[in-house]
Amino acid sequence: METGTAELEAKARRARGATRELAFLSSSTKNRALRTVAASLRSAAAAILAANHLDYEEAKASGMSEAMLDRLLLTQARIEAMAVDVLTVASLPDPIGQEFDSRRLPNGLQLCKRRVPLGVIAAIYESRPNVTIDISSLCLKSGNACILRGGKEARRSNLALARVVQDACRAEGVPDGAVEFIESGDRALVGQLLRMRQYIDLVIPRGGAELIRLVSENATMAVVTGGIGVCHAFIDESADVDMALRIVHNAKVQRPTVCNALDCVLVHRGIAARFLPRLREMWANAGVQMRCDEASLEVLDGPAGEGLVAAGDADWGREFLSLVAAIKVVANLDEAIAHIHRFGSGHSEAIVTESYGSSNRFQSEVDAACVYVNASTRFTDGSQFGLGAEIGISTQKFHARGPMALEEITSYKWIALGTGQIRE
Amino acid sequence: METGTAELEAKARRARGATRELAFLSSSTKNRALRTVAASLRSAAAAILAANHLDYEEAKASGMSEAMLDRLLLTQARIEAMAVDVLTVASLPDPIGQEFDSRRLPNGLQLCKRRVPLGVIAAIYESRPNVTIDISSLCLKSGNACILRGGKEARRSNLALARVVQDACRAEGVPDGAVEFIESGDRALVGQLLRMRQYIDLVIPRGGAELIRLVSENATMAVVTGGIGVCHAFIDESADVDMALRIVHNAKVQRPTVCNALDCVLVHRGIAARFLPRLREMWANAGVQMRCDEASLEVLDGPAGEGLVAAGDADWGREFLSLVAAIKVVANLDEAIAHIHRFGSGHSEAIVTESYGSSNRFQSEVDAACVYVNASTRFTDGSQFGLGAEIGISTQKFHARGPMALEEITSYKWIALGTGQIRE
Repeated sequence: METGTAELEAKARRARGATRELAFLSSSTKNRALRTVAASLRSAAAAILAANHLDYEEAKASGMSEAMLDRLLLTQARIEAMAVDVLTVASLPDPIGQEFDSRRLPNGLQLCKRRVPLGVIAAIYESRPNVTIDISSLCLKSGNACILRGGKEARRSNLALARVVQDACRAEGVPDGAVEFIESGDRALVGQLLRMRQYIDLVIPRGGAELIRLVSENATMAVVTGGIGVCHAFIDESADVDMALRIVHNAKVQRPTVCNALDCVLVHRGIAARFLPRLREMWANAGVQMRCDEASLEVLDGPAGEGLVAAGDADWGREFLSLVAAIKVVANLDEAIAHIHRFGSGHSEAIVTESYGSSNRFQSEVDAACVYVNASTRFTDGSQFGLGAEIGISTQKFHARGPMALEEITSYKWIALGTGQIRE
Repeated sequence: METGTAELEAKARRARGATRELAFLSSSTKNRALRTVAASLRSAAAAILAANHLDYEEAKASGMSEAMLDRLLLTQARIEAMAVDVLTVASLPDPIGQEFDSRRLPNGLQLCKRRVPLGVIAAIYESRPNVTIDISSLCLKSGNACILRGGKEARRSNLALARVVQDACRAEGVPDGAVEFIESGDRALVGQLLRMRQYIDLVIPRGGAELIRLVSENATMAVVTGGIGVCHAFIDESADVDMALRIVHNAKVQRPTVCNALDCVLVHRGIAARFLPRLREMWANAGVQMRCDEASLEVLDGPAGEGLVAAGDADWGREFLSLVAAIKVVANLDEAIAHIHRFGSGHSEAIVTESYGSSNRFQSEVDAACVYVNASTRFTDGSQFGLGAEIGISTQKFHARGPMALEEITSYKWIALGTGQIRE
């Protein structure tokens, strides 16, 4: 344990030490390193998949859930998608050095904000090994050093991926310490990491509710929390039923194991009789279990085996991460908004409506990172939003909200250019 | 103590309860309330001054330092300045509801960020009673609820000012709980406040280093720290000596008790013989004590009584808040930047130079909230920057840096308007 502790201290000190040089690294050096990462992901794909296979088999043998296993799994296609994301990041404009909010004061002082890196970003994450690549590539592009601490279950996969990045950095002249990876699975190291305010500017937990709580309560530096998505779709009385079916189906089924997948369908009672029977038919075919409140069960003539069951209290505000959805009939928009206010996690919320007024009120009154009108919640994603890969999805309001990409992991300084101005 | 605790809980719950209504309050209601605050500050000036007089006399009798007494003091002119600042805030555009970063995705989804309040902001502050007005007016304008906890030494002044705001809110239909004021001086309440993550989104400590440390280490919600300004001015070899004298004089003398006042003058050795004797003459007249390193003492022919003494180790990186400045001769720009990196607090740093190259490097390499070329550090201020009154000056990089005004206490949500888009 003593070794682990001293090693962590050394890694954190090295990351902090890299920040001054990283802040001035030219865009061409950073982009060259990123292109090398992408090329190495492709050329080292077999080795990465072999490492992942060992993690996967071990996790499976240990009884990991299907949802978690899907998060852990790497495939040729997923590695290729990572490489493409890294190339996208390389092709994005360098955020560092951008000037904005410029103004000239009445006394002639020329003021602007100039974008600078945050410094050292630590990420503590579970299962999904692509996080190793997402976070290190975004940090590299934005001149931040990063300290990565992946889950024990993905340790071989993460190590293989971290080596790809570290080798590319070394080859392209990125300073030592830019990407530090913690191999040890020792939990106590997380506690130590969270007290390292002198080295670390921001910590991002990516994983389950327990990890997020642990980090929020114990970190002495800034934290961005997110990743818990209890997502609702409200089908308004005026909704186009075909569109509503298409949207809820996509939001629930396209990739049920991720945070922007749909968890609960709220149905206006005025459209329930037209919408719910068709939803039931569609989801019976797709193998989606519907956990229904009393009113929706009434519309659907009661429980009917595995696919249609009565909802329990714990099904409201629950992130299913599987082919299960809660269904509730509501009297009106007010009840839908109140339900979302009470049970939502502030991630992604949708309304399907043809009413201007309902759309307007939903946008204003629903307090979430992403509010959708007539679109699937599955779009909440840095790549989908056109930001490049994402470092996480923030469900807090401070600093950044929703998909966080390059700009969201920068700060700025004010630059004031004068000609001898003094304050009167 | 039990009463205090329950009262605090009730106030925090009331503030949280006010947030939903505050988020939708019309600009005209908010501005009307602000104009009423300004009018009441003027009409209640005598009562406020009387309350402040009692605080001031008590503080003076208890041996408070001159710097702190100056911070505590209210005058007719300072109350008028507060009223003017509140009217400025009323006249600024309402940040809430502003949309920005809009884009249309290739699939036709129309995306933008819409500005929303942060929620509940707690401020814990010392001495300066104008903070009560600054923070409550900025929170009101930006739709945030606030919980104010001023210093014991200013309790009568703060209470008088908080009443002005609360009465104006009540008169103009601002919801109850928008501005909560903690009267009790009980220190234990601060600890309780810092654990109220469920009610409070952000806490802003404004005061000395001890308060800031206490809040940073114990808060379970987001914190913006700042207010400690160890400010340097580097007089480059190429500087215009007259301009350099004017700038350092203004930065040191115009209001020495505030955080953007100058603490240390770094002098390029190539200009020391031309600059330092004139600085000494100017500051002898102004009563500024110079604490000099060996090299500058040599230029000035050694210590000479009260006004010119040898610097001790503790004088580097020290915020004097009085008519004292540390003076050091440096070999070059590199040494100046290294000194600032080591001893600065990341607040405001200035260079006086006629060299394009030095100006450029100083702007890039000095890591501070505000970096000045040929201007006084005294401009670091929300009003001076044209932002209206300020809620604080952040010396951290997360969320906001430098003067924080309206935009800096908001968040945003993503709004996505679709026509049935689903993710492929």
